[in-house]
Amino acid sequence: MKHNFGAGPGILPHEVLKQAAEAVVNFNGIGLSVLEISHRSSEFEAVLDEAVSLVKELFEVPAGYSVLFLQGGASTQFAMVPYNLLPETGKAAYVESGVWANKALKEAKYFGGVEVIATAKESNFTYIPKDFTVPSDAAYLHLTSNNTIYGTQLHEFPASPIPVVCDMSSDIFSRKVNVADFGIIYAGAQKNMGPAGVTLVIVKDDILGKADRKIPAMLNYQTQIEGGSMYNTPPVFAILVSMLTLRWLKAKGGVEAIEKENDAKAKALYAEIDRNPLFKGVCVPEDRSKMNVCFVVENPEHEKPFLKFCDEKGIVGIKGHRSVGGFRASIYNALPITSVHVLIDAMQEFAEKNK
Amino acid sequence: MKHNFGAGPGILPHEVLKQAAEAVVNFNGIGLSVLEISHRSSEFEAVLDEAVSLVKELFEVPAGYSVLFLQGGASTQFAMVPYNLLPETGKAAYVESGVWANKALKEAKYFGGVEVIATAKESNFTYIPKDFTVPSDAAYLHLTSNNTIYGTQLHEFPASPIPVVCDMSSDIFSRKVNVADFGIIYAGAQKNMGPAGVTLVIVKDDILGKADRKIPAMLNYQTQIEGGSMYNTPPVFAILVSMLTLRWLKAKGGVEAIEKENDAKAKALYAEIDRNPLFKGVCVPEDRSKMNVCFVVENPEHEKPFLKFCDEKGIVGIKGHRSVGGFRASIYNALPITSVHVLIDAMQEFAEKNK
Repeated sequence: MKHNFGAGPGILPHEVLKQAAEAVVNFNGIGLSVLEISHRSSEFEAVLDEAVSLVKELFEVPAGYSVLFLQGGASTQFAMVPYNLLPETGKAAYVESGVWANKALKEAKYFGGVEVIATAKESNFTYIPKDFTVPSDAAYLHLTSNNTIYGTQLHEFPASPIPVVCDMSSDIFSRKVNVADFGIIYAGAQKNMGPAGVTLVIVKDDILGKADRKIPAMLNYQTQIEGGSMYNTPPVFAILVSMLTLRWLKAKGGVEAIEKENDAKAKALYAEIDRNPLFKGVCVPEDRSKMNVCFVVENPEHEKPFLKFCDEKGIVGIKGHRSVGGFRASIYNALPITSVHVLIDAMQEFAEKNK
Repeated sequence: MKHNFGAGPGILPHEVLKQAAEAVVNFNGIGLSVLEISHRSSEFEAVLDEAVSLVKELFEVPAGYSVLFLQGGASTQFAMVPYNLLPETGKAAYVESGVWANKALKEAKYFGGVEVIATAKESNFTYIPKDFTVPSDAAYLHLTSNNTIYGTQLHEFPASPIPVVCDMSSDIFSRKVNVADFGIIYAGAQKNMGPAGVTLVIVKDDILGKADRKIPAMLNYQTQIEGGSMYNTPPVFAILVSMLTLRWLKAKGGVEAIEKENDAKAKALYAEIDRNPLFKGVCVPEDRSKMNVCFVVENPEHEKPFLKFCDEKGIVGIKGHRSVGGFRASIYNALPITSVHVLIDAMQEFAEKNK
């Protein structure tokens, strides 16, 4: 039994994996693998339809928004967003809260002006910058809701006079969000929603068509909306596994229920970090992420032994990102609270042995 | 037992599906699913390395070429090729041999000049246009090696004074190809190489960097080469299944061995179409595809009954594309010759009952 705290591609529900494996051999009992059927088959169309419906239901997506399942990850959205929204002579406002935000704003520069209205770069991104004014003449405001590398999270979204575009790759469906406050929400699936290879995009239809630029078909939200995510062959299996994960989430009680569990997991783990004399947190407490819990040892000599200690207990994926060091416990939706308790027990046992 | 003649996503080898299903539950015995491990883990890096090595070995890729596994399908390559290769003031030469070639050339127009040097559009693409001169002042010549919809195939590649870019989505690894004759070969995996969600690109390094244009990271071949297909999170599972399929191909004796099998399958099926008074081929015989065998019934009243007759025998996926009608039997690498004989038997039995 492994306790998978990996930052992504991250843990998926056990029953989803079992269903996915069955579909690879014999999908819905049709005698064919889901990997070898047409994406235009009624069997796959039902999967895509259900995936879209589940997103709309779980996130209470209002009318006037389209739900897309695309390829290329959030990194492709970094370019696709300005390609579609940023006029060559216009500008877009970016909050630089981490490496991914930085990559996103660099891509925007290929298409138009970029104004970085706030940054936490000088602190190596240990907090969420909040002290800024959103320029009302920008095409959009770009935010990153959760920073996987540093373990910070935007707990309250700023009011904005312009459309808000938000990269929610690492906390999508982990908490309630008011979709109506956003122009575009995008998320690589591989942290909280499914496997690598598919990207969820929720886009408000009426913000499109204003950049006055020719856009290649695959990069054009309008084409993808008209094609119902099937302008070309979609990533069939990644969409199936995402749909199964969303179905699992619905059965658990939806976003509200999982948010409570996520709160409980984060609270327990941060309490131990703050209590245990061997460990300390990395970020400003008020901006701590409920998805990626970053912490370090007070004594650097404890780092390797603690990793080994965890490994022996089946705790995997907690090595920190190379730019932060220490540990990162990702506690995504599919991670059971029992795994968090195994980690807390390990921290306590390790402290007992090393006092 | 189904006989899967679907045009794509198409049939995959039975043993590959079994291995893939196992990996979804417990990958290489590590106690985690391949869907929930880091793409930077040694386990997945070994998969990607082996996939690249197998492509190089099976296709005898010469030095000076890079092998990439990207997202977005061939449709994204339609834009990525001109983005990287076509200067704004330059032109590219396209042979319009089908709908996909047409889509490719339309995308190129966003980036520079396009010269359609030959087309078979007036015949609804029942032959491969061969009567053309390649302009030596174009940036590249774009070809489509096999046309899934019409069942035509380029059996001999034209000599070209400029780099040749070829969409091999529907016949990659079905026959020997001299990679040194090409600047770029690209292929959506989902017909002959793996599942939907990953695209193989083989690119000659020294043709890059000449379009004098800023290119977003994800669309820049150079970035993808430098990142070793891992500039961002790659489509892990689709790459694994492709690697397993390539491993299967190698175990079968490689491209030369599968080419012989494919020749035998195509020969047997076309012989029956030509012999059987109820059926006739769609394309010019010399350009017939060895991957997608398109045929119609002489008497339209036989169409639906023949489809039903096939269905009862477990023959699936042979309905023709809506723009051609009739039938299309896709006989990709993974389709065993026994399935072709089942189809031939069905054609003979049906003819016997309907004479």
